[in-house]
Amino acid sequence: MTELRLLTAGESHGKNLVAILEGIPANLKISLEEIVLQLQRRRIGKGRGSRMHIERDMIEVVSGVRHGRTTGNPIGIIIGNAEWEKWKEIMSPFADACNNEEAILYPRPGHADLAGICKYNQTDIRNISERASARETAARVAAGALCRIFLKEFSIEIVSHIISIGNVSIGDRSVTFQQARAIKAFSPLRCVDQKVKAKMVKIITASAKKGDTLGGVFEIIVKGVSPGLGSHIQWDLRLDGALAGAIMALHGIKGVEIGRGFESARLQGSQVHDAIYYNKKRGYYRGTNNSGGIEGGMSNGEEIRIRVAMKPIPTVRHSLPSVNIATGKKGTATFQRSDVCAVNPASVIGEHIAAIILTQFFLRKFGGDSMQETKYNYNGYLKQYQYQP
Amino acid sequence: MTELRLLTAGESHGKNLVAILEGIPANLKISLEEIVLQLQRRRIGKGRGSRMHIERDMIEVVSGVRHGRTTGNPIGIIIGNAEWEKWKEIMSPFADACNNEEAILYPRPGHADLAGICKYNQTDIRNISERASARETAARVAAGALCRIFLKEFSIEIVSHIISIGNVSIGDRSVTFQQARAIKAFSPLRCVDQKVKAKMVKIITASAKKGDTLGGVFEIIVKGVSPGLGSHIQWDLRLDGALAGAIMALHGIKGVEIGRGFESARLQGSQVHDAIYYNKKRGYYRGTNNSGGIEGGMSNGEEIRIRVAMKPIPTVRHSLPSVNIATGKKGTATFQRSDVCAVNPASVIGEHIAAIILTQFFLRKFGGDSMQETKYNYNGYLKQYQYQP
Amino acid sequence: MTELRLLTAGESHGKNLVAILEGIPANLKISLEEIVLQLQRRRIGKGRGSRMHIERDMIEVVSGVRHGRTTGNPIGIIIGNAEWEKWKEIMSPFADACNNEEAILYPRPGHADLAGICKYNQTDIRNISERASARETAARVAAGALCRIFLKEFSIEIVSHIISIGNVSIGDRSVTFQQARAIKAFSPLRCVDQKVKAKMVKIITASAKKGDTLGGVFEIIVKGVSPGLGSHIQWDLRLDGALAGAIMALHGIKGVEIGRGFESARLQGSQVHDAIYYNKKRGYYRGTNNSGGIEGGMSNGEEIRIRVAMKPIPTVRHSLPSVNIATGKKGTATFQRSDVCAVNPASVIGEHIAAIILTQFFLRKFGGDSMQETKYNYNGYLKQYQYQP
Amino acid sequence: MTELRLLTAGESHGKNLVAILEGIPANLKISLEEIVLQLQRRRIGKGRGSRMHIERDMIEVVSGVRHGRTTGNPIGIIIGNAEWEKWKEIMSPFADACNNEEAILYPRPGHADLAGICKYNQTDIRNISERASARETAARVAAGALCRIFLKEFSIEIVSHIISIGNVSIGDRSVTFQQARAIKAFSPLRCVDQKVKAKMVKIITASAKKGDTLGGVFEIIVKGVSPGLGSHIQWDLRLDGALAGAIMALHGIKGVEIGRGFESARLQGSQVHDAIYYNKKRGYYRGTNNSGGIEGGMSNGEEIRIRVAMKPIPTVRHSLPSVNIATGKKGTATFQRSDVCAVNPASVIGEHIAAIILTQFFLRKFGGDSMQETKYNYNGYLKQYQYQP
Repeated sequence: MTELRLLTAGESHGKNLVAILEGIPANLKISLEEIVLQLQRRRIGKGRGSRMHIERDMIEVVSGVRHGRTTGNPIGIIIGNAEWEKWKEIMSPFADACNNEEAILYPRPGHADLAGICKYNQTDIRNISERASARETAARVAAGALCRIFLKEFSIEIVSHIISIGNVSIGDRSVTFQQARAIKAFSPLRCVDQKVKAKMVKIITASAKKGDTLGGVFEIIVKGVSPGLGSHIQWDLRLDGALAGAIMALHGIKGVEIGRGFESARLQGSQVHDAIYYNKKRGYYRGTNNSGGIEGGMSNGEEIRIRVAMKPIPTVRHSLPSVNIATGKKGTATFQRSDVCAVNPASVIGEHIAAIILTQFFLRKFGGDSMQETKYNYNGYLKQYQYQP
Repeated sequence: MTELRLLTAGESHGKNLVAILEGIPANLKISLEEIVLQLQRRRIGKGRGSRMHIERDMIEVVSGVRHGRTTGNPIGIIIGNAEWEKWKEIMSPFADACNNEEAILYPRPGHADLAGICKYNQTDIRNISERASARETAARVAAGALCRIFLKEFSIEIVSHIISIGNVSIGDRSVTFQQARAIKAFSPLRCVDQKVKAKMVKIITASAKKGDTLGGVFEIIVKGVSPGLGSHIQWDLRLDGALAGAIMALHGIKGVEIGRGFESARLQGSQVHDAIYYNKKRGYYRGTNNSGGIEGGMSNGEEIRIRVAMKPIPTVRHSLPSVNIATGKKGTATFQRSDVCAVNPASVIGEHIAAIILTQFFLRKFGGDSMQETKYNYNGYLKQYQYQP
Repeated sequence: MTELRLLTAGESHGKNLVAILEGIPANLKISLEEIVLQLQRRRIGKGRGSRMHIERDMIEVVSGVRHGRTTGNPIGIIIGNAEWEKWKEIMSPFADACNNEEAILYPRPGHADLAGICKYNQTDIRNISERASARETAARVAAGALCRIFLKEFSIEIVSHIISIGNVSIGDRSVTFQQARAIKAFSPLRCVDQKVKAKMVKIITASAKKGDTLGGVFEIIVKGVSPGLGSHIQWDLRLDGALAGAIMALHGIKGVEIGRGFESARLQGSQVHDAIYYNKKRGYYRGTNNSGGIEGGMSNGEEIRIRVAMKPIPTVRHSLPSVNIATGKKGTATFQRSDVCAVNPASVIGEHIAAIILTQFFLRKFGGDSMQETKYNYNGYLKQYQYQP
Repeated sequence: MTELRLLTAGESHGKNLVAILEGIPANLKISLEEIVLQLQRRRIGKGRGSRMHIERDMIEVVSGVRHGRTTGNPIGIIIGNAEWEKWKEIMSPFADACNNEEAILYPRPGHADLAGICKYNQTDIRNISERASARETAARVAAGALCRIFLKEFSIEIVSHIISIGNVSIGDRSVTFQQARAIKAFSPLRCVDQKVKAKMVKIITASAKKGDTLGGVFEIIVKGVSPGLGSHIQWDLRLDGALAGAIMALHGIKGVEIGRGFESARLQGSQVHDAIYYNKKRGYYRGTNNSGGIEGGMSNGEEIRIRVAMKPIPTVRHSLPSVNIATGKKGTATFQRSDVCAVNPASVIGEHIAAIILTQFFLRKFGGDSMQETKYNYNGYLKQYQYQP
């Protein structure tokens, strides 16, 4: 194998999103339906605007997969834009494109707009906002869906559920992997508690009426990761750092916790650390999982649990004060069609970001250029550590 | 310049810690005293055990600095171990070292121990715990201290303060950069509120008596960062991701927030996003800083604010259940001399990790192989974006 | 800027080649015609078979360029395959594709075939040969053409010419940058000496009749590079290493020389090293350029000169002995339509590989996220070093 | 495992050279004697000046190795400078060091000096030349010696021999791995032909008298590499590119060939490519090895053969014209104690650079965090590909 690499390209209203994912071993069975399914899950959410219906992604895998199996080649993914006809002049690469549109001049608070025009020396905010848009995450989800398929071969599964929307929350209760997995794939609000879910729907509806937006907290749970992904030996090789970094790099995310996170800062050491047990059948195991499956920068064999805080969507109807970047005059940020709440899609995207990072760390440990080789290596490791005592 | 790179090596009781920091431009004035100062700050903390007095680090900069200025060469830093004589057989690289010590066999919950012996196929936990020890952070702090000196040349300053220890907290109040900077360099508990601080001292003392440990929350504040460090254009180039990832990779950290973090998930969009203003003197500015200085993965010119949750130190006196890795028999984790609370040093280390990441992102944007060149480039950018409207 | 990154994907007969090029500053004027021109130059060559006419690449820039200028976003390039209809079943990603084709079973000497099927555990050589094909270089040329446009803004120009085909050579004579630049863009054999060129054409024709193939040597010349790209400070930051590595990684390349290369190993030191002169008008300069523009791993301001040896194309009509990978039986490698000589296209591709590496090293030194910023930085550096004495 | 990483630091006359090598699996038996042996081999050479006797390197492995075995931790290596007392003021990191020495002002042709002072904005050439010195290669050899020990566990061995010094050459004859391995470890001129060797000694002696210098050509031969290291799937993953790049990045190297290199450009395809055979005992094999063991960017199971051209040492006694960087006045480059010919040490260093790259590529393919795991994975792969037909 080679180090898993992923680059994406493409603007929100551009002709295509493109992803190149490199490093998946050869001979992995790939179902395009599974990728489409995940892209559809990404679009669904209570509080998402009409845009989601428009966004009929048209996905093609143009390389790296042949006759239903990966070949080891870089996997090229192209996602079409169903509305390209409408945008093809505004987003044209050609200099002589007839551009009737006026430049966007009011940067939106909470967006990349202002920092972006400073950094890239732009006079039209569209040149920033098009790439900063969360539509780019469709490319990450497509790549992540492939990683999920890979991880599935090793019985690693990733689910998520919503803990809170605004101030409506399921509270501190622990949600099991099975409960989270039982949520329907296309549920518009992936919360395990039906009563709380009803309240969540209610405040989203209320917020929509007010023209305001909401954030929330979701949890990602990963089952089946062996001990030893990531490493304590160097600051930039730790699994917790990589997962937290990749997830914080998702649009709108402002907080990440692993295991009990901020709560563990309030407890005594004797309450927090997970005692170690062993029996022949299970091997090493823990009575509790306060660490969220990662100790010393390495997976420890327990479920990996990551809680993620998303801020409310920045585009609010009653626009916030802003400044015209051409004149310096006061004004309000241009309102663009917007969702009310994106926590549901964010949790789906979060699953896929976790899948990408875990696949990268898995392959760093086990190597292998074909699924047969990677599995052979993996099984050897299982035998090595499980029966150590 | 070249991409800033940092590797560290060295075990807790080994002969030396070693760091190589590459990419700092030439002609930066370096004061070794500043590095020593930061290493000393790292050692201080209410609730730290006797080890801190032992750890009289002996630091040498052996390359990359000549006659008080950097040369552009990789900077080699060696930190000696004052107790090496005592450890030189136990930690000897030589095969024929007389090793009277018995192997460590009980992995400690909350540590790298168990995952580490599985991953690296070890029969003596010392081979894991020595590198997983937080002493490695001395190397990161030394490198980070150099980065601080670099950032200072561009008026970028980094401070930190403690928000809570266990369940004693200053609450939600906002602490200004100036307040945090006013904390004495060698304060053993870097909290801005004297009354709360007294309570913190109290619970640490109480915890020490019980043989238990405490964690807490600290905040890092960075002042003076121009808009445009980091980028929205690719998932792994965002500044928030890099900062969160590097800080989560610090020992004991289980949660990271940027700006209002988890709190922002509970609010309405209209309450969260920071309105944009402009005047000739200040350029663009915000009325609030809920975003913590980062929007769209880029610095936006406001203070960068990161809140960090540290779990209690895992080594508790009344040891937790564990398993003998040679026999599989039940037992308790070996107790080793331990601190009660490491939040104070962690906040100092956190400052330096932030310094490393910010220096890396600063140099990615501004380039330059000498301080003169980097400053020229930087000043050109200031002129470019500040007077855009 | 961010570190220049380039990934390509796509198979020889797949639906698309895809490239993502990241890190080109914003506001660079891009002419798609220039990219098309370079892709056309890549296809032309005396001794290339009929395939070149088939390969009517259809190129699209789908992101990163808007209204004729880069935006700083990753640039997504898609190159279509005019013959896709013919191949769509054989190369289909779908498991249920009707595959009438038989697997390719005889690995061709001189190709990736045999090592590839071992490494990736394949039973059909097509899964290797499709990606190992030199058609992938179309994606590199497209990306390199963008880099050329970037470099042109700093008056850096790259040309190439053919020194020898088989045993017909222009000899040791030095060819000037101007002579090489004077070669017509679409010359099928880019040699500066018309008589030698005629002989080259002759042996290619003769070789074609015999069903054999030819290699040759070409030179890449880069004009206008300032001193100081690359660095002596670390083994993997040297410009000569990066250029040699990237060029050796081109299909069929077996030797790379910088400056006088192997010849310099036969001379005395006093004959080889380039004396240093200075005058106010030119700044520092050399009387000779035996070093080929690179000393100590850095550009030194003189023309960068790289000579490259290409082996004959491996696919020969009278096929070489091979082995059936399914049965282990002797046989001969499957003959596929082939060119006789690919030195002319290789020299064009070589220019573009050099352009990619030089752009990467240029941006490492000068930074900048917009062309205005990069130019400002660059001009500051010119002022700094040129008038140093 | 993690990607093998190597950083070095240190100046020629500084207190220490430092190397950090990360990624070697745990439980590899390390003999410090083997490292010392290779460092000694690096120092020996007909035509090397008195400096080699001075340079009594004092090497310490300060981390990553315990009781004769690697632990998986980063390996920190410190090499002392026996003459440090003499240099400690000139090279002091402290600003207040009494510096009686005058700055070096005449850049030496053929060195990093001139490009370096431009790039790093220096007024004393010593700040460049100290790091650009080939003494840095001691750190690379120490790291490479560890990689050799690793590779030896998989029966991969690396040797080298000298083909020519100046215009004295063994000619085109092929030298076997066994012949090259039979050369004595401490031979001052590692040539397999005693008569040619005598002539080489003669011209080195003659050159020394004239105060001139000589280069030459050496060959590196690697035995025992399985097919499938490196990959054809991406431009920067090819083994030939990585080897050529790393070797070209060695001091004084101006040309690199793989297999028959430039010669293959003069031949017909039918003469060049290596026919493929198979039998049960040997598996796949070739009748010839013109490709030098690499096809399509991958090792193909045959011996890897790399020929390398080194230019004469730039420091010649009758100094070349240069320019005073403070005044712009003509002068001659300062003569510093110099060797006459460094081809013998370069060939030893070249072996170690090859060892580093091959270890990196080996671990990319086979993964593993302990030697047991890496060996298990490796053996599985051998079984997979060897009996494929």
